[in-house]
Amino acid sequence: MKVFRRVYQSLVKYLEAAADFISEPEIEAFVKVLESIYRENRKAFVVGVGRSGLVGRAFTMRLMHLGFSAYVVGETVTPAARAGDLLIAISGSGRSAAVVAAAEVARSLGMKVVALTSFPDSPLAKKADLVVAIPGRTKVSHEDRWEIRQLLGLHEPLAPLGTQFEIVAQVVLDSVISELMYRLGVEEEDMKEYHANVEV
Amino acid sequence: MKVFRRVYQSLVKYLEAAADFISEPEIEAFVKVLESIYRENRKAFVVGVGRSGLVGRAFTMRLMHLGFSAYVVGETVTPAARAGDLLIAISGSGRSAAVVAAAEVARSLGMKVVALTSFPDSPLAKKADLVVAIPGRTKVSHEDRWEIRQLLGLHEPLAPLGTQFEIVAQVVLDSVISELMYRLGVEEEDMKEYHANVEV
Amino acid sequence: MKVFRRVYQSLVKYLEAAADFISEPEIEAFVKVLESIYRENRKAFVVGVGRSGLVGRAFTMRLMHLGFSAYVVGETVTPAARAGDLLIAISGSGRSAAVVAAAEVARSLGMKVVALTSFPDSPLAKKADLVVAIPGRTKVSHEDRWEIRQLLGLHEPLAPLGTQFEIVAQVVLDSVISELMYRLGVEEEDMKEYHANVEV
Amino acid sequence: MKVFRRVYQSLVKYLEAAADFISEPEIEAFVKVLESIYRENRKAFVVGVGRSGLVGRAFTMRLMHLGFSAYVVGETVTPAARAGDLLIAISGSGRSAAVVAAAEVARSLGMKVVALTSFPDSPLAKKADLVVAIPGRTKVSHEDRWEIRQLLGLHEPLAPLGTQFEIVAQVVLDSVISELMYRLGVEEEDMKEYHANVEV
Repeated sequence: MKVFRRVYQSLVKYLEAAADFISEPEIEAFVKVLESIYRENRKAFVVGVGRSGLVGRAFTMRLMHLGFSAYVVGETVTPAARAGDLLIAISGSGRSAAVVAAAEVARSLGMKVVALTSFPDSPLAKKADLVVAIPGRTKVSHEDRWEIRQLLGLHEPLAPLGTQFEIVAQVVLDSVISELMYRLGVEEEDMKEYHANVEV
Repeated sequence: MKVFRRVYQSLVKYLEAAADFISEPEIEAFVKVLESIYRENRKAFVVGVGRSGLVGRAFTMRLMHLGFSAYVVGETVTPAARAGDLLIAISGSGRSAAVVAAAEVARSLGMKVVALTSFPDSPLAKKADLVVAIPGRTKVSHEDRWEIRQLLGLHEPLAPLGTQFEIVAQVVLDSVISELMYRLGVEEEDMKEYHANVEV
Repeated sequence: MKVFRRVYQSLVKYLEAAADFISEPEIEAFVKVLESIYRENRKAFVVGVGRSGLVGRAFTMRLMHLGFSAYVVGETVTPAARAGDLLIAISGSGRSAAVVAAAEVARSLGMKVVALTSFPDSPLAKKADLVVAIPGRTKVSHEDRWEIRQLLGLHEPLAPLGTQFEIVAQVVLDSVISELMYRLGVEEEDMKEYHANVEV
Repeated sequence: MKVFRRVYQSLVKYLEAAADFISEPEIEAFVKVLESIYRENRKAFVVGVGRSGLVGRAFTMRLMHLGFSAYVVGETVTPAARAGDLLIAISGSGRSAAVVAAAEVARSLGMKVVALTSFPDSPLAKKADLVVAIPGRTKVSHEDRWEIRQLLGLHEPLAPLGTQFEIVAQVVLDSVISELMYRLGVEEEDMKEYHANVEV
């Protein structure tokens, strides 16, 4: 159980240290975009592949609980997007072909594009109106954010592939949800009203 | 290629013969329920497992294209259902546990439940306000609708497991979509406006 | 119910007439590829977006029931593909960007690519080793296969968007499954052994 | 941005404090079950609804990267389970009807059932061979694990609904993956070999 404990603690420390590499202005801008989408009754679409896609789905579900018209690209009931709607594109490497392609289509439709990625100079980031940088080693890079590794005194990867990116992105997005609850005046009880009650 | 040709033709003949076993009053009642859901701006939820679930998704997507608030049970953005909303439950055998359970929950919420099944005395059918009988052998029964087999002079199953049920259900539901287009005055061009334009 | 009956019957007639536009050599080549994937224990991947993707999933499930190592591109457990593996790409128009992109990646990996499409000169078809032409109006074209419309004496579309393509593709693929059962000596009882028994 | 920062830090502190409420013997037993599934070449199935289901998918994907035959209940290619196979059932409340039903079916098939839940006396836990308790408020309870709230000096919920459960479960399961890498001698490079390379 040595590895389990050490990795659990290191992931927690990584999350803690990552806070310093999350840009307050970027989060503020992201929250402002979401607020305006909500208040103008526009649609938010979320796209990601693999585990980043699952992080995106978890966020989309909470947006729905907040009362957003939110959709996952590729699901059954996802409708047409219009100019002024929002695409939230999640890719640690910023190179997932399907995500970059979706961002391209979104731009051509006049949508706003927000990218969550570890690489602010990646192909995805270049197509985005706003980049929210998320520290995290990604599967295309052998390098962690070295500053964080240094802070933690680690000499090896904590967890395989994009794990750090995915966990930091999840906690960032869940904190964005709480910020939105506060700004939009949505209580947890309101969110329960939206929560699926016929589930399989 | 003997088998390919013979099965293709038999499936077509099965579909043709099935028409006589599809009840016009049942379809009429189903369309009426859908019309009222649409006009009263209520939600439609669709549930099914396995290939029946895929048939259900294909139908849900078209309902969305028509302008319904339609959802697949279990997808990310599926919200809470309320009394007066509709559950469309699809199960050839009428015994898929998750589908029966969903119908039970739906009833307890005061939803309307429409069941598409080959077995009008199945557990699912018993929980439904309306049963739309769909002829088809199902995976729990070795018997085709014998009347259809007799009509076609067939002495063996056409295709494995629930294939006939799924194909007949698909064509029935696509024909319901056309009926709804006519009744609701929705043109194909209107439907294109809803069709997803950011796809992966 | 005029529309429901007329469309149901027209879809059946469309399916019947479509048989003459399905190329036996193309199906034979497709079945041969599938046989060799099965016998050489290679993997089959299926990709499609929207309702074509649902048709693809229904086929993939049956391939799994037959004992194939079959996967849907984008699902959780879909592993890496290797040279010699198969991509089955389904797109009525042959222009769905994500499907074309997947075919491109597949070629670069040395996979075999089979395209099911109504347009044998489409971008998707050009990337395929084998095209299985499926007659069907698609959502990018206002034209049905006119020969079929003529045969049926129809003056208007039967059903919206890609419906005809999707239904013909479904019946073609289910007939391919029966052909594979025959060639591989798989009985329906064998397939039941693979059928999911823990379902939600 | 007050809320964002405070919630981010509180979630990190919650994760840190949660470590003391995660039972080493439970994790050890869980890892042992997984090891034996791997070495005996049996199948692992994962089930969960809503965001717990997404956590389960993220774990299943990594099991696949490790070389497990791992499946998500309800996905297209999920095959039949046999006696001796494993069901991992995830539900914060331990009351999600579909998850409890799946555990019931799994037991009747002779499968091993491991439950991840915050409630070791819940209906799900009662059907499990092994319960891995995950501290977390859940959507059916207004109570956090009060010990953790006390430790943190918090007087209000950190984040809505099941968020804490989901994040702790995610980090626990990712740490289990690292433990399995160590025990099974799987390197990150090996895992990349399994990582999907045709993605949408």
